[in-house]
Amino acid sequence: MERLACYDCGETYAFGDAARCRCGEPLWFETDTTEFDWPDASEASGPTGSGVSLGRDTLWRYESVLPATEPTGLAAAAGGTPLFRAPSIEPADGPRIHLKVEGVNPTGSFKDRGTAVGICRIDGPVGTVSHGNMALSVAAHAAAADREAVVLVAEDTPDSRLAMIAQHDPHLFRVRGDYGRLYDDTLDGDLGAAFLNSDAPLRVAGQKTVAYEICEAFAPDAPDAIVLPVSSGGQASGVWKALRELDAAGLLSSVPRIYLAQAARCDPIARAYRRGDSCVEPVEGEPTVAVSINNADPPSGNRALAAVTETDGGVVSVAEETMIAETERLAADAGVSVEPSCAVATAAVRELAASGELDAADDVAVILTGSGYKYGASEADTSSVREVDRADVPAAVRDAMR
Amino acid sequence: MERLACYDCGETYAFGDAARCRCGEPLWFETDTTEFDWPDASEASGPTGSGVSLGRDTLWRYESVLPATEPTGLAAAAGGTPLFRAPSIEPADGPRIHLKVEGVNPTGSFKDRGTAVGICRIDGPVGTVSHGNMALSVAAHAAAADREAVVLVAEDTPDSRLAMIAQHDPHLFRVRGDYGRLYDDTLDGDLGAAFLNSDAPLRVAGQKTVAYEICEAFAPDAPDAIVLPVSSGGQASGVWKALRELDAAGLLSSVPRIYLAQAARCDPIARAYRRGDSCVEPVEGEPTVAVSINNADPPSGNRALAAVTETDGGVVSVAEETMIAETERLAADAGVSVEPSCAVATAAVRELAASGELDAADDVAVILTGSGYKYGASEADTSSVREVDRADVPAAVRDAMR
Repeated sequence: MERLACYDCGETYAFGDAARCRCGEPLWFETDTTEFDWPDASEASGPTGSGVSLGRDTLWRYESVLPATEPTGLAAAAGGTPLFRAPSIEPADGPRIHLKVEGVNPTGSFKDRGTAVGICRIDGPVGTVSHGNMALSVAAHAAAADREAVVLVAEDTPDSRLAMIAQHDPHLFRVRGDYGRLYDDTLDGDLGAAFLNSDAPLRVAGQKTVAYEICEAFAPDAPDAIVLPVSSGGQASGVWKALRELDAAGLLSSVPRIYLAQAARCDPIARAYRRGDSCVEPVEGEPTVAVSINNADPPSGNRALAAVTETDGGVVSVAEETMIAETERLAADAGVSVEPSCAVATAAVRELAASGELDAADDVAVILTGSGYKYGASEADTSSVREVDRADVPAAVRDAMR
Repeated sequence: MERLACYDCGETYAFGDAARCRCGEPLWFETDTTEFDWPDASEASGPTGSGVSLGRDTLWRYESVLPATEPTGLAAAAGGTPLFRAPSIEPADGPRIHLKVEGVNPTGSFKDRGTAVGICRIDGPVGTVSHGNMALSVAAHAAAADREAVVLVAEDTPDSRLAMIAQHDPHLFRVRGDYGRLYDDTLDGDLGAAFLNSDAPLRVAGQKTVAYEICEAFAPDAPDAIVLPVSSGGQASGVWKALRELDAAGLLSSVPRIYLAQAARCDPIARAYRRGDSCVEPVEGEPTVAVSINNADPPSGNRALAAVTETDGGVVSVAEETMIAETERLAADAGVSVEPSCAVATAAVRELAASGELDAADDVAVILTGSGYKYGASEADTSSVREVDRADVPAAVRDAMR
């Protein structure tokens, strides 16, 4: 479990010797899953049941293929998120959509998986370069584990997000200057903290468990596709790593195609995909409502691109108004509140169905990366609220439901 | 499963015939648990392990003692929340504190339990009188189940909360007039919707499952006490009902004491307890930071009081500054973000430890009813944030961690 390897050039390192491969690509923990089988294989119910019971057992059910041992406390509660079908948002003649609701993780996002595994594996102070879900996750888990945490946020991070992070009492710095370069600054490790950035090997090892849960819920079959938002590429890297491991273990009837979704206003990976390139070039991104995935120079972009091409998937760019409409659809029709950065994934499914890439024969698992409740208060739309006197309530209600 | 009974006078009714007992008290679903045993009894790990795996299996593991059958979709994801010990917040020489984190339910609060069971059991439109967690839960689950929902909120409900509820597209009414009386207005059912109010029998039947999960995690032992915030008394009613059922089933080595926590500025149940009365009288409540439990005339107050007296527990009133400090403590020391309405419970444990009512020999399970992230953005405290140039980050970080 202790060796790190570069998917791209094959170079290997001992854990702790390198943050990235000397070829520039991120590293993966090597995992031998050839002997791995589903825990309690007999329990497999498949998505026809509630689709929940298996997953709700937390990510630690996969401890045997993780570079950390099951802890107690908050980190023990990561993962094990619900997976259920949502017919109400399925396009006509389109695929069956199964929602993987990551917002029910302890800090409301998928980031808790990588944070939980990382913080259990390393000692001492931890850190991260993030102003969103990852910053909140690292700050909270560090507080729970009684560790010092360093959180470096961008200069333009709104106070409401900072306050949410600050409650967990990390060393919180709002950094002036090129925020993109900060990621590189933290790699050499002389900051006195182990940085659990988006594609750090330990984080990717934890993030992969969402794909383990999805595939186990479908066992002995497998979903036809897994669709997720992409920003740095760290989660896409984790999903692909999991599929490679499960395939090696002989646990996939077929390897799901990986589809990634980006905001059209900042879509470096989608552009490289359309060009047919294997390398992602930085773009001049524009501001987008999908703030959590607004990454113009993704550090694991090449890895994410490889995940897509090697599984015959694709990358979709989604327009602003489409993301906003999809966010509203998920809340109003599926009862799930998400950020636009997350709704971009089901919007992508809609576009892939329209183009015929996904059809009625497909089971698609969509990773809804984070809860919309955390940031909901910032965009208050109360236009649908009706004012009424108590005495007039019966008439008003009857009228509304006519 | 179909009979409703009044704990107080013993009167029984068929489900659907009455919303409350003619004696004025709320009704309970009758449940025969004499033959009930823990599902997969062999799996019981107790709180010495992660304390999570059992609970994470959702509330539907108790389907055999619920008045509803397991659904698919969002309602299937309710319950199964983490339970873990938090030594970092335990008072010196005080009890062992085990946190039951209800904030990881689909809409971020314990209310999803009662909503999930209720919406699966009844057909047609649903409704609720709430401006907080219950309103959000009913709106979201109704959206997921493709039902019409009626939500009646108080005139002074802030827009940020309304917006969060409105995204799930219920019929949302801001009602002018006596909000307390609205609860009674909805009981006669002529509003064309089934109201899942805080102490409706179906909701209480769902809310009871949190106590099932806590006790199963401790099996074959039992916690010495269960501490929770109290507002209407519906959740206290559910916890007590569960303990009575588990005791009847012979699954409790001893019956945990039930302790309830209120804000001192609005503590009708605590006052009745201190008076030694069995009836709760309405109070003139003052505004409190514990907005979610600010109930001056709790409809299940007598039931909550009986739960406390019959289990040799108690009711604690907590001061504003104590709740605020405890909210900060839970986030900074335990990594759990909660509302003050929720931190009131661990604050109560601290006071019970100081008075000697709880001591180092006790295992106490505290129900943290809701997530603090939903409303975090409204109180932005960024005083701890430091501004720094990128070039100065290494020095600033080293200095901070010195």
